[in-house]
Amino acid sequence: MIKGIGASGGIAIGKAFIVSEHALKVEKKRIEDKAFEIERFRRCVKKAEEEIKNIIEVASKTLGAEETEIFEAHLLILQDPEFLGTVEMKINSEGVNSEFALEETITMFVSVFEDMGIEYMMERAGDVKDVGGRLMNLLLGVKTLAVGDIKDQSIIVKKDLTPSDTAQLNKEKVLGFVTGIGGRTSHSAIMARTLGIPAVVGLGTYMEEIKQGDLIILNGDDGEIIINPQEETLLKFKNFQQSQQEEKNQLMALVNEPAITLDGKGIELAGNIGSPEDARLALMQGAQGIGLFRTEFLYMDKDKLPSEEEQFNSYKEVLENMRGKGVIIRTLDIGGDKKLNYLPLTEELNPFLGCRALRLCLKEKHIFKTQLRALLRASVYGNLKIMFPMVSGVEEIVEVKKLLREVKQELSQQGIGYRESIEIGIMIEIPSAAIISDLLAKEVDFFSIGTNDLIQYTIAVDRMNEDVSYLYNPLHPAILRLVKLVINNAHKEGKWVGICGEMASDLRAVQILIGMGIDELSMSAGSIPKVKDLIRNSNYEHCKIIVEKVLNLSSPEEIEECLKKQK
Amino acid sequence: MIKGIGASGGIAIGKAFIVSEHALKVEKKRIEDKAFEIERFRRCVKKAEEEIKNIIEVASKTLGAEETEIFEAHLLILQDPEFLGTVEMKINSEGVNSEFALEETITMFVSVFEDMGIEYMMERAGDVKDVGGRLMNLLLGVKTLAVGDIKDQSIIVKKDLTPSDTAQLNKEKVLGFVTGIGGRTSHSAIMARTLGIPAVVGLGTYMEEIKQGDLIILNGDDGEIIINPQEETLLKFKNFQQSQQEEKNQLMALVNEPAITLDGKGIELAGNIGSPEDARLALMQGAQGIGLFRTEFLYMDKDKLPSEEEQFNSYKEVLENMRGKGVIIRTLDIGGDKKLNYLPLTEELNPFLGCRALRLCLKEKHIFKTQLRALLRASVYGNLKIMFPMVSGVEEIVEVKKLLREVKQELSQQGIGYRESIEIGIMIEIPSAAIISDLLAKEVDFFSIGTNDLIQYTIAVDRMNEDVSYLYNPLHPAILRLVKLVINNAHKEGKWVGICGEMASDLRAVQILIGMGIDELSMSAGSIPKVKDLIRNSNYEHCKIIVEKVLNLSSPEEIEECLKKQK
Repeated sequence: MIKGIGASGGIAIGKAFIVSEHALKVEKKRIEDKAFEIERFRRCVKKAEEEIKNIIEVASKTLGAEETEIFEAHLLILQDPEFLGTVEMKINSEGVNSEFALEETITMFVSVFEDMGIEYMMERAGDVKDVGGRLMNLLLGVKTLAVGDIKDQSIIVKKDLTPSDTAQLNKEKVLGFVTGIGGRTSHSAIMARTLGIPAVVGLGTYMEEIKQGDLIILNGDDGEIIINPQEETLLKFKNFQQSQQEEKNQLMALVNEPAITLDGKGIELAGNIGSPEDARLALMQGAQGIGLFRTEFLYMDKDKLPSEEEQFNSYKEVLENMRGKGVIIRTLDIGGDKKLNYLPLTEELNPFLGCRALRLCLKEKHIFKTQLRALLRASVYGNLKIMFPMVSGVEEIVEVKKLLREVKQELSQQGIGYRESIEIGIMIEIPSAAIISDLLAKEVDFFSIGTNDLIQYTIAVDRMNEDVSYLYNPLHPAILRLVKLVINNAHKEGKWVGICGEMASDLRAVQILIGMGIDELSMSAGSIPKVKDLIRNSNYEHCKIIVEKVLNLSSPEEIEECLKKQK
Repeated sequence: MIKGIGASGGIAIGKAFIVSEHALKVEKKRIEDKAFEIERFRRCVKKAEEEIKNIIEVASKTLGAEETEIFEAHLLILQDPEFLGTVEMKINSEGVNSEFALEETITMFVSVFEDMGIEYMMERAGDVKDVGGRLMNLLLGVKTLAVGDIKDQSIIVKKDLTPSDTAQLNKEKVLGFVTGIGGRTSHSAIMARTLGIPAVVGLGTYMEEIKQGDLIILNGDDGEIIINPQEETLLKFKNFQQSQQEEKNQLMALVNEPAITLDGKGIELAGNIGSPEDARLALMQGAQGIGLFRTEFLYMDKDKLPSEEEQFNSYKEVLENMRGKGVIIRTLDIGGDKKLNYLPLTEELNPFLGCRALRLCLKEKHIFKTQLRALLRASVYGNLKIMFPMVSGVEEIVEVKKLLREVKQELSQQGIGYRESIEIGIMIEIPSAAIISDLLAKEVDFFSIGTNDLIQYTIAVDRMNEDVSYLYNPLHPAILRLVKLVINNAHKEGKWVGICGEMASDLRAVQILIGMGIDELSMSAGSIPKVKDLIRNSNYEHCKIIVEKVLNLSSPEEIEECLKKQK
């Protein structure tokens, strides 16, 4: 048994398919015809470009925008005169072969990037290696065994899964991933979770103990790998795998049951989605509505801003898919760490505290107005609610409502229809918004608490930062107080409150939220069944008592202890 | 009259001393004796190293740690095998002269860094240019007219003030700065404010209208430059300059008066300092104590961690300088954007939400314990209070107090003396700490509200980010509510509260803070007189009414309007 980092939950049992890293040997050769050699190099660059463009085309259909973006970065390297120029200069001035010139250039660029010690630059170094490797294969005419060559259902074992690998994956054949490097936030780990495939990463040199064709048990929950297990171990894990599946099936039986406590308090369970197609998945899992439709995919998949028509069609599609159920569409939440290729944004030292979301929309009003027009036009096709992210004060929502009135007026003048009574809400994700939620509640129809960001700002902790993520905790007394304050302030004004952050599906927190009187919980579709099950086994009056108890405690640890005793 | 950006307040009147940028012409030459050429290059590198080391020695005495650091970065470039290697490789493989090889290398490095579009990398590009220019001058044997050549009192006019320039400045001769490039946060601007010299930056091509020896009026408050003014304009500004000086003198007359309102409420006015010497300056301006002694200088000026002895001597010095007055020493607040050369920290995507200050200290306990030992040992020399930054929850201060007990025990066992009754406080600068300040007040003797960070986190805005800094406002209703909450919670437990952020000297906010019952205000020495003057002209009961009024308003704009009417 060897241990790594559990990066994506679940059990996988199957044969190891090992993809070795190719350690290509590059010889230095003297070249007489430099012009011909440069021509040969340029031909390979062209070919590599075509390969990548193909991958982008495939990936944009099967993978998310984030993955496609990686290849866009690769393309940029292939078009970078700095990079290509260095190779060609070497061929020209030193009279060496393309392979040698390329290898030296890769080494130089990688070392410059890596020496900077900045994560962003480290990633660029990875890109250069990936693209450089592709070019090298083309120059050498080598075809290596690739992830795409997998034939039978297997567990893929590779030092690192590059974006090129994942794009070539035949998902039906892959039972699990095992990688030597990477942590929970590495590319491989995120990919595995996105695809819902169990994965263990960061095995280090332990990886070498796995041989081609070994039977492997991969436990993605504990980060464990068992190689060639004994019969009884195998049986135990097969049973475990089966009972996980059964539990899933059991929960799925609740799909058509309401989310209501034993003493009759109903909570709306909604889905968080990232594209119109996701709406169907959410319905299948029993979502009573969409609590958060992220519209970023419309902007991030493209090389230019999405047209009003394009947006209108997407919004219309999701509203129609949800057949009259409520659909909360959040306006553009981009900027900071989420970039658009075609919209040059300033690099920021602290992107989380920068020009994101509504701040960007109020600066780039033409982008914002196009989205509002598309939303209003789509509103006649269902039960649309519009939600604005990153509001920090009253003046921002006042400005937004003024813009919305302007857009409505424009549409009216043009004789274009829209629903007059659209609910308007805001995310409560900035501490100042939570603190003045009494004032904000007068301005809107609903709140949705974005706990992920609210926790990050309130405790001043970037949860992706491994050095401080231990401080990130939804059970911090300050967070619980803020959530309660927001719920109370909304209810005082007769408005409803939901939660669309991960806290909504955190089984430790759900009963506290019920006890505080939360009206709606919105989460990724897969979490709905287990949260519904918990609600149906809870008692509202008892949850209120839990709230009283935990609010008297002074640390997350004490609160967790207290919650455990409640069970 | 031409207009730029006011970077440092005040009026300067004097002759222009223009320092031109030298556009050096570099010729490409064939070199026969490559070994000799490389030797020549290396000699110049050595010389440049010596020059920079000299500057560091001078600068560490006259300038702050931040400036010295810049030259440490320059030294690193001169020791970087990547940089030097590229030059030498070019000399060797292309057979060209050092100057040409250097120029090509500078161009390449600068363009790689600048293309990244990241501020940090832009700064590195600037460093490469600065160091490269120095090396080039040495190679060419050129001596250019430098900032250091200034003879009579003048206003320096230069495209950009490099760190090398500022280090060579004869401060007595410089009446003001005018630069072509840069904004309020550029190096030139920060330098000007540090030195208290009026400055206008970012003039762009307007700069060319100034000729050598022109008489200039520089208005650092409005960012205006008047070239060769008419007699009456000159007279007007001379009078203005004089009245500014008189006002200053008037305020200084208050130095020995108490900071007490018309109806007898006293507020302690303290100084924020960054080194033991600053304590004298604070006393001269009438500080009743030190409200914040930043200890970072001890760590940032060095190439290794400061020893216990070194720290002890600094703490002892400031305690003795303050002759029994209270001195709040804050433990190390480093990490995030403040780096130490000798302590490799992970680069963070959002340094403000990362492993800073106390978080780092609790991770690197040996560093923290050394500081605590030095503090305890120094405690017998005055009225020491210890303050911990970046506390987000109760468990952190509990851990800190445990460590402090351990260190005390160690000292006792070694027979080393310390004062038993040292007041312990924390910064309230993270929203969660403000929200649970009732719980934290039970654990400490005092709070000091770090409004700069508290505002940044609460409104989720990096105030250095020009795209969003408009949102940064101490008069945001959420901030005023938090400050009031913290003061009330502290007083309920019989503890005192101060403010050591810039809000303490924000004349718009001071009366609100008085009305809320603040006990102490700590600020940079120069601000003490005007705040004292305001307190002495305020009425506590009236301030309470102001607080009631502003807390009923819902936006910073409304609050500012209301405050204006109070006058």
